Amino acid sequence: MDIDAANHEAFRRILEAQPVLVDVRPAAQALPRLGPTAVLHAGPPIAWTEMCGPMQGAVIGALRYQGLAAGEAEALGLIEAGRVTFEPCHHHDAVGPMTGMITPKMPVFVIENRTFGNRAYCTINEGLGKVMRFGANDDSVIERLGWLEREFAPALGAAVRAAGGIALKPIMAQALQMGDEMHQRNVAASSLFARQVAPRLARLDIAREALGRCLDFLTGNDQFFLNLAMAAGKATMDPARNIPGSTLVAAMARNGTTFGIRVSGLGDRWFVAPVNMPEGLYFPGFGPADANPDMGDSAIVETMGLGGFAMAASPAVVKFLGAGTLRDARRFTEEMQEITLGLNPAFPLPTMDDQGAPTGIDIRKVVEMGILPVINTGIAHRKPGVGQVGAGVVRASMGCFEQALTAFAEQVGAGI
Amino acid sequence: MDIDAANHEAFRRILEAQPVLVDVRPAAQALPRLGPTAVLHAGPPIAWTEMCGPMQGAVIGALRYQGLAAGEAEALGLIEAGRVTFEPCHHHDAVGPMTGMITPKMPVFVIENRTFGNRAYCTINEGLGKVMRFGANDDSVIERLGWLEREFAPALGAAVRAAGGIALKPIMAQALQMGDEMHQRNVAASSLFARQVAPRLARLDIAREALGRCLDFLTGNDQFFLNLAMAAGKATMDPARNIPGSTLVAAMARNGTTFGIRVSGLGDRWFVAPVNMPEGLYFPGFGPADANPDMGDSAIVETMGLGGFAMAASPAVVKFLGAGTLRDARRFTEEMQEITLGLNPAFPLPTMDDQGAPTGIDIRKVVEMGILPVINTGIAHRKPGVGQVGAGVVRASMGCFEQALTAFAEQVGAGI
Repeated sequence: MDIDAANHEAFRRILEAQPVLVDVRPAAQALPRLGPTAVLHAGPPIAWTEMCGPMQGAVIGALRYQGLAAGEAEALGLIEAGRVTFEPCHHHDAVGPMTGMITPKMPVFVIENRTFGNRAYCTINEGLGKVMRFGANDDSVIERLGWLEREFAPALGAAVRAAGGIALKPIMAQALQMGDEMHQRNVAASSLFARQVAPRLARLDIAREALGRCLDFLTGNDQFFLNLAMAAGKATMDPARNIPGSTLVAAMARNGTTFGIRVSGLGDRWFVAPVNMPEGLYFPGFGPADANPDMGDSAIVETMGLGGFAMAASPAVVKFLGAGTLRDARRFTEEMQEITLGLNPAFPLPTMDDQGAPTGIDIRKVVEMGILPVINTGIAHRKPGVGQVGAGVVRASMGCFEQALTAFAEQVGAGI
Repeated sequence: MDIDAANHEAFRRILEAQPVLVDVRPAAQALPRLGPTAVLHAGPPIAWTEMCGPMQGAVIGALRYQGLAAGEAEALGLIEAGRVTFEPCHHHDAVGPMTGMITPKMPVFVIENRTFGNRAYCTINEGLGKVMRFGANDDSVIERLGWLEREFAPALGAAVRAAGGIALKPIMAQALQMGDEMHQRNVAASSLFARQVAPRLARLDIAREALGRCLDFLTGNDQFFLNLAMAAGKATMDPARNIPGSTLVAAMARNGTTFGIRVSGLGDRWFVAPVNMPEGLYFPGFGPADANPDMGDSAIVETMGLGGFAMAASPAVVKFLGAGTLRDARRFTEEMQEITLGLNPAFPLPTMDDQGAPTGIDIRKVVEMGILPVINTGIAHRKPGVGQVGAGVVRASMGCFEQALTAFAEQVGAGI
């Protein structure tokens, strides 16, 4: 088995990806295998009883939003009766930030990788404050999701179709020149995306006030692009899955309880270990005692070489995360070069003399070097309903990589 | 005479400036002293016969646009008959990029410095390609200016008034974190400005197609914000003028023939010297032999501490200008620290560990250190009608500073 050749092929596929936003549609239409009682969540598979507080809170909200339960008691009844199907977003070619909720009514971005023809999906970023992805589930959360479904998503979908799709890689490359790392900082990418979409939205046949509301929402959230970057990451990484002999990490994801990875040469199997606590800065009035362990599929951004891996692009984010100065930012990126297959020339980093972002995590290098992937992350309150309490940096869990390497060695030994 | 105290006061006024875009109006309304046959130009005063090719070309176009002449022959006849009044933009509280044309019909941004109550003005950036600021004057140029006057400026003015004004300093500070230096790179500032204005434009009572055209124009030009940055610079620097004993440079401007500066303690007088040739990169098919000497009021951006002075903010622009790498960019900024009064904490530079932009050029330091202000500039073709042929870096002319320092010494000696 030629591991290097397999990894070379995996790396080539990542580099050749061309993720394009082609539509915005209800998950029920976009995800063909999604059942009517499905609730998709972030991270590797997890049972209700194992879920952390914010994820349980989000599930209750998701069931209310979907119209399956009128309130918390009814929602809990459904869950205990086994009438809710919990599955990872990743099992439906999708990704979700933080709690990662996807139910059939929710609109999702449809991203097509034009090079390979595969598609990936992610919900629309709800903005800051009380939002379902951080476990909030009150009426304001449900109402916002309803507005996204009724007014915003149909308009944005029509604008995207009118544009013939919006190529995301050029936006991401430009945003890296503008201080984004595409995980905890997306102000440039969000602005560039809004600039591109606004003239299309303006020409739709929708009421003027609706247009105003859509533009308010689109332009009012510096993290709007995060969910597009995540879906672009999923669409980019999926063609690099299932390459026999490849030790590439094809996905990293957290459900708030466990950290899981998938490895290209090891099929659909998740390798899981307890998830770490982020270290970072807390919003006023909160501290580490309030923090939930790390959560979300957003680590797909790091999996494709951005976020913490591209920290050098973002002197602003390294401060926001409490992780130091530009010098530290460059050190993070240099460290990630030690555990990756190569540099992505499509994503030059301006503070590194335009060296590409370190891309393609190799489980062998992680274990040999003892260097864990670094992930830039939001921090959720450990109780449902509170929301975001900070942002910081977290490391992937070594147990995942050790187990995967053992499994890989067994497979090689077995001559598979 | 306490020069340090005078300069301290000048520096304080620069730091306290709060430039706000409050309106977009025809120059005839906004500039009260503008006569009906006035053509304002960039730089210090200059006679028609001394103007370079692109400025002469722009003047002919400006007279056509204003309706004073039907064609070139008629325009030249008017000029030779002495029936056109040429004045610097600076003499009307205004600034203009490159050739800097302002005629009464042209809409101008109205920037108010909310701290001091003064106002400054600049035309709307026309975009790239054949444009009057680079000396082009054909029908497409005149038509675009007509559309700006009839459709775009009234809409943008209404949106700005509806917003109660748009504060420019926060946009500039954020854009510096996003790789702009606000002279040759304004993609972030232009995007942030468009994001802020688009929802206001969408709610105006104008036809849907007009709205679409306005958004196309607003979002289609990465340098849209340059003219706002220039007017913000003028509004910021004017309160620091006419402080007795101050050796602060209050303005730097070029007319394509001469380079001129004004010094705070030396009143309205211009100190002029021949202008230098930029060094930089040329568009395909052009070279140094095609270049016009440096031109435009845009050096007001450097006068307030951005552009070449904030080069460290913009690893992308230093490449675009052919001026090296991030290391060189930082060196430019460090060098400008040697000739300035201090660092502006409102404009932290991310690659310099958030040190402020070096601000407030002191003529004494320029002459003593032998270090000339560095200016990031577009390069015009020396013939009228061709347009931009490149971009690069140029140094201010030492003669201006030497003359000003001599005049200052004479004033001190005379006990003024």
